[in-house]
Amino acid sequence: MTRVEPGAVERICCIGAGVIGSGWVAHFLARGYRVSAWDPAPDGEARMNRLVEAAWPALEQLGLAVGASRDRLVFEPTLARAVEGAAFVQESAPDRLPLKIDLLAEIDAAAMPEAVIASSTSGFGMTEMQVKAARPERLVVGHPFNPPYLVPLVEVVGGARTAPDAVDWATAFYEAAGKTAVRMSREVPGFIANRLQEALWYEALHMVAAGEATVEEIDLAVTAGPGLRWAFMGPFLTFHLAGGEGGMGHMLNHWPPGSMDPAWTRLVPPAVEGALRDGIVEGCEAEAAGRGPTELIAERDRKLIAVIKALREA
Amino acid sequence: MTRVEPGAVERICCIGAGVIGSGWVAHFLARGYRVSAWDPAPDGEARMNRLVEAAWPALEQLGLAVGASRDRLVFEPTLARAVEGAAFVQESAPDRLPLKIDLLAEIDAAAMPEAVIASSTSGFGMTEMQVKAARPERLVVGHPFNPPYLVPLVEVVGGARTAPDAVDWATAFYEAAGKTAVRMSREVPGFIANRLQEALWYEALHMVAAGEATVEEIDLAVTAGPGLRWAFMGPFLTFHLAGGEGGMGHMLNHWPPGSMDPAWTRLVPPAVEGALRDGIVEGCEAEAAGRGPTELIAERDRKLIAVIKALREA
Repeated sequence: MTRVEPGAVERICCIGAGVIGSGWVAHFLARGYRVSAWDPAPDGEARMNRLVEAAWPALEQLGLAVGASRDRLVFEPTLARAVEGAAFVQESAPDRLPLKIDLLAEIDAAAMPEAVIASSTSGFGMTEMQVKAARPERLVVGHPFNPPYLVPLVEVVGGARTAPDAVDWATAFYEAAGKTAVRMSREVPGFIANRLQEALWYEALHMVAAGEATVEEIDLAVTAGPGLRWAFMGPFLTFHLAGGEGGMGHMLNHWPPGSMDPAWTRLVPPAVEGALRDGIVEGCEAEAAGRGPTELIAERDRKLIAVIKALREA
Repeated sequence: MTRVEPGAVERICCIGAGVIGSGWVAHFLARGYRVSAWDPAPDGEARMNRLVEAAWPALEQLGLAVGASRDRLVFEPTLARAVEGAAFVQESAPDRLPLKIDLLAEIDAAAMPEAVIASSTSGFGMTEMQVKAARPERLVVGHPFNPPYLVPLVEVVGGARTAPDAVDWATAFYEAAGKTAVRMSREVPGFIANRLQEALWYEALHMVAAGEATVEEIDLAVTAGPGLRWAFMGPFLTFHLAGGEGGMGHMLNHWPPGSMDPAWTRLVPPAVEGALRDGIVEGCEAEAAGRGPTELIAERDRKLIAVIKALREA
């Protein structure tokens, strides 16, 4: 069995005509793919067409791939017809485990043997979803962020019975299809971004519950503050930069996590020492890739200005 | 004692020539103010000039106020000379409590009686810093985000002995000076944005500690995912929108905080019910201000496209 090269895929199958499924369809069409789709609901086709149409002007503004067209979407009457001949299947059904288990088994049975099948699930791991599939080794999670046609992130991870080469292939395929793929080495509930988002969300709920801040103060504090930086600089590189010439190592010495008294948050951090500390410092240095504070500050300022000006004009 | 109107301030005093203090100077100069500054270090003036010069091109790109000029900065030889005649003083000394207590008392003794004095502290509440001041009622915290000349947020809050009208005045002044001011009604360690940032940071550290994700995966997941939205939409409005026509109320029914099993984050949320639940739903509706899902989605997409295009070009 030989898989087509991840960059040579021409036709994709999308299962599910909800907001996420249709968002994937819009994304793949905009990148020039042919898409065959299916959804069991009587109004599935109409719904998908409506959602793709609504997304299209945004995609035109970002720039369509050569040959991209909404005419390359074919809504099929059956699942079997939809997956036929597709090198890649993106499943975006409602997030209910029994449904996902049966649907993935059905897709697996119908798809050509070399196809890779990805689930958009946010709530389940592939280990628990692949239990009825005959070829579980080609089943992966490809978890997008909403809307999938605009937010680049897709988190890619296999289950216990997934072959690593299927995860590799899916990661390479998503990158070729214009997404930013983060390939996780193990299953974690909530993957990465939703976990981080939940931690912030829960602290925000606690602040409102304790009368420390209002809904609107919290949203404004994020969008006028750290949110502007998070659009282009993650938490590690941000604190690496805050450490100046000494980088993350200096930062961890100067502000050891959890040293704030009284505590700044309700979540207690791990002890950052030994191999963990070394790994974090090395990770930051790898990410900085030789860029020192002066270069990182110049880059941060350039991007901050770009974001601020863009939002001012939007 | 009559204070000048917040929008009629012409001269500001900035104490401290570090990254934050000089960043404030750059911001105020760019907005057209005259600034008198002081720092006790022998190289304070040179350092401030260097930092303001480095910030200036960014400020020019964002657009200077009429008459704005670096020539409007006067570095004074003493604290007393610097605060003389200034309607507003921004203190940005190192974040050590005894130093802050004495310095704020000294500024308070030298400043004209109607001046409002703000501290850039990130680590202390004004209640503990204002203990030696003769006129504690005009001392407030005005906590910026780095760099203060680009990130709009300033968190404004008084101490136990601060008069509410001083907090009101400082909030109005910051707004007039081009900042986005969040006026907090009570002191909270870490204020708002740093608490939220810490919660995300600590979960990120736990994920690395547990081998669930790497430094680079986490940074990439933020910047390619939720970070892009946080630049213009806070956590509450984001989830309000995720609730569709039913908004935050539907969201809280459908995904009650803490209902994920296994848990998506190490921080346990509060029980969101009764008055807390009602308050959150009302806060989201107030923030949406009549905008329904269709309008919010259009706005989100417009801003996402603007941010993505801007970062692509930067």
